[in-house]
Amino acid sequence: MLDVALPGTGGMMPLPGRWLSCLLVRLGGELLLFDCGEGTQVALAALGWGFRRLGTIVISHCHADHVSGLPGLLLRLANSDRVEPVRLFGPPGLCAVAEGLRGIAPVLPFEVRCEELAPRQPQAVAGGRLVAELADHGLPCLSYRFDVPRQPAFQPERARALGLPVEHWQTLQRGEAISWRGHAVEPSEVLGPPRRGLAVAYLTDTRPAARLVELAAGVDLLVCEGTYGDDADAAKAVEHGHMTFREAAELAAAAGARRLWLTHFSPALQEPERYLSLARQVFPAAEVGNDGRTVALSFEDR
Amino acid sequence: MLDVALPGTGGMMPLPGRWLSCLLVRLGGELLLFDCGEGTQVALAALGWGFRRLGTIVISHCHADHVSGLPGLLLRLANSDRVEPVRLFGPPGLCAVAEGLRGIAPVLPFEVRCEELAPRQPQAVAGGRLVAELADHGLPCLSYRFDVPRQPAFQPERARALGLPVEHWQTLQRGEAISWRGHAVEPSEVLGPPRRGLAVAYLTDTRPAARLVELAAGVDLLVCEGTYGDDADAAKAVEHGHMTFREAAELAAAAGARRLWLTHFSPALQEPERYLSLARQVFPAAEVGNDGRTVALSFEDR
Repeated sequence: MLDVALPGTGGMMPLPGRWLSCLLVRLGGELLLFDCGEGTQVALAALGWGFRRLGTIVISHCHADHVSGLPGLLLRLANSDRVEPVRLFGPPGLCAVAEGLRGIAPVLPFEVRCEELAPRQPQAVAGGRLVAELADHGLPCLSYRFDVPRQPAFQPERARALGLPVEHWQTLQRGEAISWRGHAVEPSEVLGPPRRGLAVAYLTDTRPAARLVELAAGVDLLVCEGTYGDDADAAKAVEHGHMTFREAAELAAAAGARRLWLTHFSPALQEPERYLSLARQVFPAAEVGNDGRTVALSFEDR
Repeated sequence: MLDVALPGTGGMMPLPGRWLSCLLVRLGGELLLFDCGEGTQVALAALGWGFRRLGTIVISHCHADHVSGLPGLLLRLANSDRVEPVRLFGPPGLCAVAEGLRGIAPVLPFEVRCEELAPRQPQAVAGGRLVAELADHGLPCLSYRFDVPRQPAFQPERARALGLPVEHWQTLQRGEAISWRGHAVEPSEVLGPPRRGLAVAYLTDTRPAARLVELAAGVDLLVCEGTYGDDADAAKAVEHGHMTFREAAELAAAAGARRLWLTHFSPALQEPERYLSLARQVFPAAEVGNDGRTVALSFEDR
């Protein structure tokens, strides 16, 4: 099961009642946060999923509304008795910015390991797989996909047919070959066909792009910026490197995403619901994100 | 008239429903902010006094909960079309910290002029006079007093008795001498006795100290930290360089302050009102601060 939350949905500046855009993912109890603007720690506190197990922070880019909450959040983790390292991922330039911000959080009871990511280089992170792709926002900015692969089902009837004792089953189930009675036994001999995992993509502060369609291909949930609701703001979206609701919906449709949550609303967009129909014309499963929205994604039954 | 607001009243970390401690002062339309932790820009937005005329930001010390909101606030001012310089005041070390934080707000449409203050050196600021005193918090930390001096009343009957034409009155009223018919006329010849001005003091993240009693002598409003409510936390207050409600009240009483607003509550202090009686035993005019509390201080009638 992959729990997903939108602690905040605003762009540019935090507002009373609307925190800055971010995405929180929980897998096996571990927390992974995408973006951390000013006030994100308060949005996380309001959500109530805790701080101690937040071990991965992924930043899209170094504009203040996506990174300025970092020192406060790190201090909050320290205050939650975290001592394990925290991994920080983001685009080139992030580590220097993080270093500057940490001038007010110089002493922490854990190590912060900052890694600047290249596109399309999957990383094993928090029990899943993180991959980045270049966004189109006029400065180094990354969009992300987080995959939770699913092992094929173990088929005990085939293991029994091979006469394999039960103590070897778990190794094969994990996908590792064993040697038994002088023969190699491959996992494929006792495992079923490949199974669909779970995937979430997080695209913000970007224009649409074919490479982002590919990044988000077939995801269970696409969390995508829709800075502007109205089609009439299409030119503004181009000018500022953002998307309209319609453009986000077109991207979701092209990617074959199952669900779309719109987020990163302009401060001027006070009632994003008013423009939802424009997205639904293109992608009927589109939803307007709101602060505190959550969903639990489960593997398909089979 | 001096308008005063407490946009936030929390210490250590911003909480849902309680912003970090700060103090906003408005004089002649100009705004002056004391301390700027994470989320202070949202607290200011909720207050509704605007951003454009915020030209002075005064920082007590460089702990994250007092300064981490600086880059976001500067960007907010930029977004409010401010182009006039912003003055930033604080203790030694502030300018380097501010420089690090500005890594995410490098380009602003106004100049930020950072000045590290020495104690007891009054500065002309925002139409009033700012003076700092050393706090006692284990690192460079300043407490502040902001005075609005009041001119003595102009006494037209004395000006008429001297035969002074009306066109000279304003100069004398401003406190400047004039030359008239070959004689110097001093302002004291047409002005009444000295009049009491208005003063506010802001003491946070400090133990009580005699020098702070002196700083706050006779202020109209003392905004003072009371990190702990319960007398039983007196040892913790010593350990962490803070005060209990009772200690803040003792300081207010010793200073002869007219009012006391307690602020900077520990996150563990969920209902500060429960301990107000402990402060009132010592200083009956004590009040528990709350986010959004305001008061308009007026010159006395005379």
